[in-house]
Amino acid sequence: MLDPKRLSIHQVTLPPQMTTPEFVDALARHGVPATSVWRDKVRAHGVGATARLLADAGIALSGYCFGGLITSPDAAAVRRARDDLRWSLDEAATVGAPCLIFVAGGVDPGDKDIAGARARTLDGLAEVVPHARQVGVKLALEPLHPMACATRSVLSTTRLANDWCDRLAAEDIVGIAVDTYAVWWDPEIEAQIARAGARICSFHVSDWLEDTRDLRLDRGMMGDGIIDIPRLRRLVEAAGYDRYVEVEIFSENNWWQREPDDVIAVIKDRVQAAT
Amino acid sequence: MLDPKRLSIHQVTLPPQMTTPEFVDALARHGVPATSVWRDKVRAHGVGATARLLADAGIALSGYCFGGLITSPDAAAVRRARDDLRWSLDEAATVGAPCLIFVAGGVDPGDKDIAGARARTLDGLAEVVPHARQVGVKLALEPLHPMACATRSVLSTTRLANDWCDRLAAEDIVGIAVDTYAVWWDPEIEAQIARAGARICSFHVSDWLEDTRDLRLDRGMMGDGIIDIPRLRRLVEAAGYDRYVEVEIFSENNWWQREPDDVIAVIKDRVQAAT
Repeated sequence: MLDPKRLSIHQVTLPPQMTTPEFVDALARHGVPATSVWRDKVRAHGVGATARLLADAGIALSGYCFGGLITSPDAAAVRRARDDLRWSLDEAATVGAPCLIFVAGGVDPGDKDIAGARARTLDGLAEVVPHARQVGVKLALEPLHPMACATRSVLSTTRLANDWCDRLAAEDIVGIAVDTYAVWWDPEIEAQIARAGARICSFHVSDWLEDTRDLRLDRGMMGDGIIDIPRLRRLVEAAGYDRYVEVEIFSENNWWQREPDDVIAVIKDRVQAAT
Repeated sequence: MLDPKRLSIHQVTLPPQMTTPEFVDALARHGVPATSVWRDKVRAHGVGATARLLADAGIALSGYCFGGLITSPDAAAVRRARDDLRWSLDEAATVGAPCLIFVAGGVDPGDKDIAGARARTLDGLAEVVPHARQVGVKLALEPLHPMACATRSVLSTTRLANDWCDRLAAEDIVGIAVDTYAVWWDPEIEAQIARAGARICSFHVSDWLEDTRDLRLDRGMMGDGIIDIPRLRRLVEAAGYDRYVEVEIFSENNWWQREPDDVIAVIKDRVQAAT
């Protein structure tokens, strides 16, 4: 059983045509206690306005999604990207999120230097840590699935996230986000979640469909795929995690085509039956 | 530079509508010295007939692709799958392949037990090792990309392939196949290729396209994507590998739509320019 107070529904899980006020209203109507908001949506509605909307509805934040993309080999581009990462931390603080989901960025097609991209990411994180501490928002390093490595994130494993945390030595302000969709295949996941321990500051759930047809927008509802989600939840909870279980499902051709009220009803069922 | 004698073109790289005789004829016409043949195609033409065809054309084998899929939790299904793996070793011996590409199999949607699937795979390999030794065909454990974990292979990393080789303790007859497409994202690839050393018995090249649109059939030609293929080749060669560089490109909407003669010409250029 999941304590209903621990449910969070990520903004991307409901159809993208919904505005932020419509989204917040849907959560409130169904008594969903928390959310993680999507940066593009927040900026479209206004950061301060979104913060007021959430506070008025009494909806808590499990995270702010996302900041990062700091892998460029171009010095000017990196400066801009690190500035943007600081702004996303500021925005996270304004909306009241405890952590910012950090997505590293991909590999530059010009230099194809994945090791360089990883080194630059770690440098950038080290530079931004003091700002995160100043605004009181944790940097949640999120390993993405290796199929997102080229374009989205060179942080591909929980081992690497742990290695980066070791190097940054900033346990008070740098943590790790574990997403079932990104890590379920990893032969080392049990050991690396145990190693992460108190670093785990965010836990996302969705399922891997057997007949997945898209590299980004075909995630499944918990129970519809082949991930043993309850096992992964037990692992993060054994490591000490007791905060929100955040449902994050990008699903262009299925869940985004359904009525938001129906999607929320299915989620409330599945976080009990298959999470 | 790649010694042209080290070029191998995998049968799946040319359009699937080609028969095996047409395929072998195309390789011979272009002086391609080696190939890895696709099991379904070989069985369609006949194993003995394919062996004679290749011998008559003077084309060597870099591998036989593939055998495996032994992860089922059902006892009867596992017995059949292990028998089928022995037959694929026999076929590999008949066509004269030095190794059989071993593809583990995916996760059963009923039990969702990935750890169990991995344990069963290792058990099955241990059982089949004596047969591989008897027919003189190496089992080439091939890690596939983690995005193939659900349906195709729970062997997702080179570290796990090395761990399995340690456990099997059969270095004379169990090796590892390194495929650039499957391993390029791995933060540990440098260390795990060095650890593999003489275990590496097969090296496959293709590229990861930035705008990949399919999880299986959208591989890129070397140089068209973001993998630093020359670096990976240097790593396997530093580990002692000096055999074939095998071009294996599943490409439903691009290379399979082109004239085979054009595809081979591009490959001959790219194995020099971008491999």
